[in-house]
Parts: sequence; C-alpha cells; structure tokens
Amino acid sequence: MRRVIGRLLISCPDGPGIVAAVSSFLAGRGANILSSDQYTTDPHGGRFFMRMEFALAESDGGEVFEQEFRAQVGERFAMDWRVAYPEQRKRVAILVSREEHCLLDLLWRWRRGELDGDVGLVISNHEVAASDVAGFSVPFEHVPVTPETKAQAEAQMLELLAGKFDLIVLARYMQILSGDFLARLGAPVINIHHSFLPAFVGAEPYRQARERGVKIIGATAHYVTEQLDAGPIIEQDVVRVSHRDDLATLARVGGDVERTVLWRAVEAHLQDRTIMHAGTTVVF
Amino acid sequence: MRRVIGRLLISCPDGPGIVAAVSSFLAGRGANILSSDQYTTDPHGGRFFMRMEFALAESDGGEVFEQEFRAQVGERFAMDWRVAYPEQRKRVAILVSREEHCLLDLLWRWRRGELDGDVGLVISNHEVAASDVAGFSVPFEHVPVTPETKAQAEAQMLELLAGKFDLIVLARYMQILSGDFLARLGAPVINIHHSFLPAFVGAEPYRQARERGVKIIGATAHYVTEQLDAGPIIEQDVVRVSHRDDLATLARVGGDVERTVLWRAVEAHLQDRTIMHAGTTVVF
Amino acid sequence: MRRVIGRLLISCPDGPGIVAAVSSFLAGRGANILSSDQYTTDPHGGRFFMRMEFALAESDGGEVFEQEFRAQVGERFAMDWRVAYPEQRKRVAILVSREEHCLLDLLWRWRRGELDGDVGLVISNHEVAASDVAGFSVPFEHVPVTPETKAQAEAQMLELLAGKFDLIVLARYMQILSGDFLARLGAPVINIHHSFLPAFVGAEPYRQARERGVKIIGATAHYVTEQLDAGPIIEQDVVRVSHRDDLATLARVGGDVERTVLWRAVEAHLQDRTIMHAGTTVVF
Amino acid sequence: MRRVIGRLLISCPDGPGIVAAVSSFLAGRGANILSSDQYTTDPHGGRFFMRMEFALAESDGGEVFEQEFRAQVGERFAMDWRVAYPEQRKRVAILVSREEHCLLDLLWRWRRGELDGDVGLVISNHEVAASDVAGFSVPFEHVPVTPETKAQAEAQMLELLAGKFDLIVLARYMQILSGDFLARLGAPVINIHHSFLPAFVGAEPYRQARERGVKIIGATAHYVTEQLDAGPIIEQDVVRVSHRDDLATLARVGGDVERTVLWRAVEAHLQDRTIMHAGTTVVF
Repeated sequence: MRRVIGRLLISCPDGPGIVAAVSSFLAGRGANILSSDQYTTDPHGGRFFMRMEFALAESDGGEVFEQEFRAQVGERFAMDWRVAYPEQRKRVAILVSREEHCLLDLLWRWRRGELDGDVGLVISNHEVAASDVAGFSVPFEHVPVTPETKAQAEAQMLELLAGKFDLIVLARYMQILSGDFLARLGAPVINIHHSFLPAFVGAEPYRQARERGVKIIGATAHYVTEQLDAGPIIEQDVVRVSHRDDLATLARVGGDVERTVLWRAVEAHLQDRTIMHAGTTVVF
Repeated sequence: MRRVIGRLLISCPDGPGIVAAVSSFLAGRGANILSSDQYTTDPHGGRFFMRMEFALAESDGGEVFEQEFRAQVGERFAMDWRVAYPEQRKRVAILVSREEHCLLDLLWRWRRGELDGDVGLVISNHEVAASDVAGFSVPFEHVPVTPETKAQAEAQMLELLAGKFDLIVLARYMQILSGDFLARLGAPVINIHHSFLPAFVGAEPYRQARERGVKIIGATAHYVTEQLDAGPIIEQDVVRVSHRDDLATLARVGGDVERTVLWRAVEAHLQDRTIMHAGTTVVF
Repeated sequence: MRRVIGRLLISCPDGPGIVAAVSSFLAGRGANILSSDQYTTDPHGGRFFMRMEFALAESDGGEVFEQEFRAQVGERFAMDWRVAYPEQRKRVAILVSREEHCLLDLLWRWRRGELDGDVGLVISNHEVAASDVAGFSVPFEHVPVTPETKAQAEAQMLELLAGKFDLIVLARYMQILSGDFLARLGAPVINIHHSFLPAFVGAEPYRQARERGVKIIGATAHYVTEQLDAGPIIEQDVVRVSHRDDLATLARVGGDVERTVLWRAVEAHLQDRTIMHAGTTVVF
Repeated sequence: MRRVIGRLLISCPDGPGIVAAVSSFLAGRGANILSSDQYTTDPHGGRFFMRMEFALAESDGGEVFEQEFRAQVGERFAMDWRVAYPEQRKRVAILVSREEHCLLDLLWRWRRGELDGDVGLVISNHEVAASDVAGFSVPFEHVPVTPETKAQAEAQMLELLAGKFDLIVLARYMQILSGDFLARLGAPVINIHHSFLPAFVGAEPYRQARERGVKIIGATAHYVTEQLDAGPIIEQDVVRVSHRDDLATLARVGGDVERTVLWRAVEAHLQDRTIMHAGTTVVF
C-alpha cells in the first residue's frame, strides 16, 4: 500500500481540544504523525499555529480527506488551513540582475538535491547570467527594464510567470516590482535584502553600514509586499566586520551571508514551514 | 477554578496513534495543550519522544490523573513517561571549587527570576565562595577533599544532598565523583566542562587548546556519568580565539561561555525539556 | 631598572616614513615595542591610525619623552597623538536605572581583575541597586530625576563626576543627558543600547523587534553624543531569536548580550584601543 | 614610476629594535608601509612574528632589495624571513574525490575575483567533477587510486604537480597522501577536515558527532603533515545542530561550513598571511 505524505498548516483562535481534534481525525484515517510543531501567541484568547506532517494510505488522501477535514475539524475551530503534499514539488522561478552569487547558489543546491522544489525559469534584466543558467539546463529570459519600459517589462514577466510558478525568488533582483504586478502574479515572492532589516533600508546598505561604523552586517530574506523592504521576515543572519573592511570586502563577506539566508528562506517556504501573521512570519 | 500546569514527557517505540491518544486523553479531561514538541528517530520502527505542556483544573490533576494515564495510554504504547508540575519548583544544590563565575551567575539569575528552581545549598572544597554565597542568603558548606579523605568527603556530601535535592550542579567543581557516590545520590548531576567535548577531555583543556592551535574554544554542559567527560551532552557553545590569546585570555573569554552554557543546560533540565537516550540528550 | 609601559595612539594624514619615524624614535630610547596595530583609510591621501604599546626604562618616560616625541615626530607628521600609561588606572563611574545586570557584571568583572580600571562611584536615579553596590564597597549616590528636576539632577551629578573620573559608563541608565551636561563633564561617556543600531532607535527596542518579526536581536555600545543613539559605535553583538520568544524572553537573552557588549566596549576604552574618527570608532 | 607591492614575513627571537630596523630599512628605500601586523609569544625571550605590506618603486624591488635586507636586517636579528610579491599570483592545484561542493566554491570564487591565485589543474580519483571543471576552462586529470595502485597514482600526480604549483588544495580528497609524496611535492598542502579538530579525527566525523550527541559541528582547514588530521590549523568554524538533524542534514549544513572554512584558509595562504610555528599557524 503506497503511502502519501501530507503537511497540514493551521492558524486559528486558540482554545482547548484543537490538537486532540486534529490528531484524532488523522488517527481515525490510519495516518501516522511524522512531526508536529505548534505555537500560540497566548493560550488565553491568542492565536494558535500548527504544522503537522503525516503519512497516510494513498487511497485516503486528496480531495475527500480535505473535505472531511473541513467539515469535521476546520470549520469547528474557525481555522485557516491548507494541506500541502511534498510529492507535488513546487515550481520556482528566479529573478536576478547583475550579481549572480545567490542565483548560482540556488541552482547548485537544486542540482545537489538540496532544494525541495524545481527551478523552471530564470529571468534577468541583464544578460550576464545567461551562459551560467544554460549550464544548468534551465530556460533563461532576458527582460530589460528602463523607467520608460517598466510597465511593459512587468507585463512580459507576468506572461512568463503567472499561473506557471508556485514561488518567485528575487535573487538580488534590483528592480522594484509594482503592487499591481504582485497582485496579478498570484504566487508568493521572496526577496533577499543585503542588510539586517530594519537597519539600512533602501539602496546601498553596505555603504550605509560602513558610514555608520557598524561592527556587524547581515542579510534578510522576506516575503515581498508593496511596501519596500518591509515585508514579513523569514530569515536573517549576520557576520562580524571591522573598520578594516572596505566596501568591496563588505560586499564579498555579505554575499556569503546573502546566499545562505536566501536559500534557508526558500527551503522554509518549499517545505511548508512558514505561516504569515500580522506582518511577521512564523517559521516552524 | 484554579488550573494546574503539567508537563508530560514521553519516550516509546514509534507507531500510529500516539499523539491522538495522548491529546484525546488530555482533551477528555478539559486540558488545554500549551505547547507540544515531538521527535522520532525513525517513523518506521524508531523511538518516539514527546513533551507536552498542558493546563487542567486542579481537581483533575495529580495521582488519579497519572493512574488513568498509565492505564489508558502509557501501558498501551509501552511508554517511559513522567509528569512534572512546574509549581513544585525543583531544589538545586551547587558544588564549586575555586572558580566562582559559574556559581555567581546561577545565583544572580536565580535572584533575578531567571531560574526555574531554587538554590538551597552550596558546597565547596574551598572556602573562597563563602561570603558571596552568604550575600544570597544560601547555606554554604565547606567540605574539603584530599586523596586520603575523599571517601569521607563524599559521605559527608551524601548526608547533605541525598533525598534533599532534585538536581546537583557542578559549577566548576574540580573533583571527580565516584560511581558509588553518583548511584547513592539519587538525583541527576549536571557538569560544565570547559571545552567543546569530545575535544580536550580531562584536565587543562584551555592549555591543550592553545597548544593545538585551535581557532575556536568552547564549553559543554552534560549529565554526569561514571565515565569522565563522557556523559550525555545537554548544551554547548563556542567562541572564536586567535594565536594572540594567551592562557589567561582563553580562560576569561571561555569563562563567559561556560557560565552561559551551564545556565542554559540547568534551565533546560528545570523546565523538563530534556530526555536522555542512548548516551545523548534530546533537548526540546 | 624598572620599566614603564606606554601606549601611543596616533591619527594623522597617511604618507611614507611614519612607522619608521615612530619606531626609530622608540628604538633610540631603548624602548621595546610590545604590540603594534595600524590602519589606513587609503595609502594615497587617506588617514593613518596607529596604536603602539612599548616598554621603556622609567627614567626615560613621562614629560620629557612626550616633549621630544612632539618635537621630533608628532609635529612633522601633523599627528593627533597621545600617550597613555596603563599603570595610571582609569577611574570609572557608572550610571544605572532599574535594570542592574550590566552594572553587576561590570562590578563583578572588576573584582575578578577583568577590568583595566577602577570603579569609584555608582549613581542611580533609583535606589534598587544600593545594597548590591555596597557589597562591592563602592560609593552609591541616589540622584532622582523628574522632568522638573532634570537640570538640578544634572548639576548634582556634575558635582560628583566632573574632573573626578576618566570614563562614565551608562549601564542601562534610562535618562537622556543634555548636551550641556556632556560638554561640562569633560570625560567620555559610553552607553549600552539594547538593539543592533541603527535598527530600533529610541525606546522599547525589544518591543519594536518583536513587532517587526526579526530573527536576530542585539546590543550596541557607543560613545555618547548629543544626538540620541547616534554616537560612534564601539562594539555590537547579536543573538538569534524566534517567534516563540515573548518580550520577557527577548529582554532576558538580550540582557546577556548587553552585558557582554558593554564590558567589551569599556575594556576597549580602558586599554586605549579606541580612536574616534568621522562618526565611527576605530577599535584596535 | 610604477610601484611594486611586497609582503615581508618575519619570524625571529623577540628583542628591542626589530620594528625600527625593518621600518627604517623600508623608509630608506622610499617604501610606504601599507599594513603591518606583529605578534610576540613573549616580549622577554619569546618569538616575534611580523607581516608588513609595503609599496616601493619598481626599480628598487627584487633581488637587490632582498640581498640588502638579508645583510642589513635579517642576519642581525637571526630572522626567518621571506618577501612575497602579490603580482606573482600563486598557481593552485586542487585535488578532489566525489564531494564537489568545496571544489565548485573555490572555482566560482576564483571566477568572481575572490581568489588571490589561479587554479591551473584539478585532479580527482573519480570522474564525476570532469564536466563541471570543464565549464571553468580548467584542465582536469582523472587519477584513480586503489590500495594496489597507490604508489603509482602518487607518482603520476607528482609528475603533474611537482614544481608546477605553489599550493595544493585537498578539497574533500579522501585519500591519505604518503609522507614521501608530501616531501617530494615541494609545495604546501591545505586540507579541509569535516569536524572541529581535534574532535572526531579520522573517518565519518558526522556519524561520530551524531552518535556522541554534540550540539555543534564544524570544519577545520589545516596544513597537511604526515600525521593524519594533526597538521597546523589555519581556520575553523562551526554551526549549531540538534538531535533532529539526521546524518544527511549534518552533511549538508556541515558542507556549507566546509566550503567557507577552506576558502578562508586558502585565501589566508595566498595573501601570505600565515606563518607556521610549533605545530600551529599564526594567521595575520
């Protein structure tokens, strides 16, 4: 009997009996719980979050399972919920400008089997990455952007992306995407910003960091919203620097942090370990 | 209606229905699950570990609750299990030699409300810490140890400790405790070792580290077993050093790591977040 | 022959021959260079910084030495320079409000011999720290501050501090000091801010951090200028947090970072390893 | 007038006048000191180490410069010394087995301009890396090794390497090199070991780490000597893990540390920032 893995993600008002209801529902279908994480903002009147990974017989999965869950559990606790099936690997598109270290790291990790999704397209407003991307047998589209052609470029990208990808990754893509574009994209977008937000928003964060004389620089991966550099943070990391490090050095050691942070955030999303809430991200 | 907090710790062979059985048992008694962590070494034939914190009406807690849990859940899944009640604060005794930084840090944190237990006694084979300990209104016992008087000193300490404390902390206590002493103590013992074990076992780890030219030093908190420096590790941390750091500097920056690592390990134990397994410690 | 240790701190326009001139001057007096650090913003037209620690015969030290250095080296290279003698231990005063963890850590390190200066006074706008400070045999002054009495309180503190201390440390002192006070103080002031500046300036940085959903919190020690939270940064460090950490937890784990960062910054100053430059701090 | 950059590396018995003699020698030739680092194991009778980077007119560099330095400075202070010229980029050969993450990271950094040397050859006892290496236009040699053919394989590699490369990098090369091979190679060899040595020497360090239940894993880059995993350490770093991390996860997160640590060590060597001493490495 083939077994299917499912991941149940729940967000609802906290209260007694939630875990029992969910786990009994699963046990009643012969499902084995593989892992479980939960979090509540406050056991009295707070919000409850849960991620449960389970295995069940293939014949019991899918549509019927979800209908029954909605009827027997989801509605009773007023849940926001969804089930994801890791077998349905997520389709990923990557946008990049000139700096290719984050892009290459994602492609490498994908090839090594370290990415729980499949890269199906790379779009860039420059042509520099074309030959590297070709080496990974991934389609590459060059969509140049100027202030005048921005609307047209976004339309062209929507044509390439909308409905075709489950996740868009901005791997040092240095163009601001319009709210309209994000709305019509219909898929989450993860960006890597090269500072520990909220310090140093906007352009040239390494230059800002050097001028301010900070002893630590960092990178932040976040979901993209209309508000620049203000979306829910998924992952951050930092590295120690000193007055001796010039701008080029900051960019290089910072680049190492960027690629790691972006990959961790993308993996958290692909493994269905993220739930957005009130401008922040719960990462299980 | 007063509510009591309980912490259920479980270790058993993995299999379907465990979480459902436990959470349904709790839901059936009106308990609200406050937090839950689980881990399995392998969903097929591995071992399952769980920590569940819950709140239930006072009248439903205690002996009857545990008897019913054993009968309805524990025996069915062949569980090793226990329930801890944070209201019953654990009694802690600390053993120390000359270096007092770990001792003082624990006493401070206890006074600041950062320790989920109560320090009731400090024993030292030296007298240096006496006046500091007095400042915290904690009894201090001087039990000198020489090779000749070791058996006698252990007997004296057993008199002070056995049956009276729930946790013994070796906060840089530089005497090796006999297996007989540990067996008769009847309480877990946590030690801080000043290296990232298993590197640099035994005496003078900072000297060993310097001679080997390592670029990172660390500290390890572990449960004490008869085998020196080989007990299940609870917590470790490290700090970067260089050739410029002499022995005194290593001892000082290492000391900062030691006190933090020891405190974290003691807290993990006091909050019932540790389960020993096969020479290692699962820390939730 | 008794030998005296000196520390020469230099800042001047970069150019050839500086190191040769300084080291030849020292060699000409039989001084042995114990350690040397240098840094240039740019070898062509940048600014040069150097810290040199040396030992020389007592009879050759002091006023004559400094006069000759000025005449033979300092003026030639248009240096900002000073010589510090570690034997003249710096006098330190500490200001604190209610949170005493940074204060106690400094006092305790001082007692252990981990502070290259002497704490001679603690001032607080609250009385809570009085008995702890007494345990270290350090004078304690209670100077309450209200919006109405601020000018008077600052006058009272100037009376206690001006001309009597070489360094003032704000160990979680939650009052803003006026520019006039700072000017009349005549001594550098180091503050600990509980965020990784420039993120989360102003009040309640841990609350801000939690609301923003950051994955890393930190602390910053900086020289105090009139501009709030904007002085030259001396030291920073961070610690990883998650959505599970409530405000109390952030304050506690953040507190550990604060006390370490403040101590490192104070030590850097006491060991004459800091040179301010263009709103930043060169730390050797 | 074209200027040449030189790097002077010195190791000698400590004593007064060394810095003055060196810097005066350089100043006398119009050299500008760009950076300087020094370290002494003990100012009284210890050993002194220095790295000085300087710029001087091309006509003053090279053989005459070195002859004069030997005569006027080197012999006087019984120095071990050498001058390196960064313009003469070091030739690097890389040996690899099946795991290619360290190799690819080095190649990619080289292409990005982050390596102060040039990769001229990759040798592997497997063929898997061949096509990737081809993408970087670097020659690839497949030299299989079995217990029976080891001597022959080493002879073949000596043919390819001896006298042709300045640095050999073992980027997860899983064969032990004989002392005879190392002696005849005539160039330093840097290896990456996947543990924080001296913990977990030998094979399968991640398995050892998991069985021991450590909370931190790491990687160590060291110069290779005849004694396995015991050569002078150049660089180390670590990453936090938990009981949840299975062997595959340890290998993956450890792999990230390995590639970073190896690159940092290789860069330290290529920038002439390393001096071996008494089984350890001074890294400036």
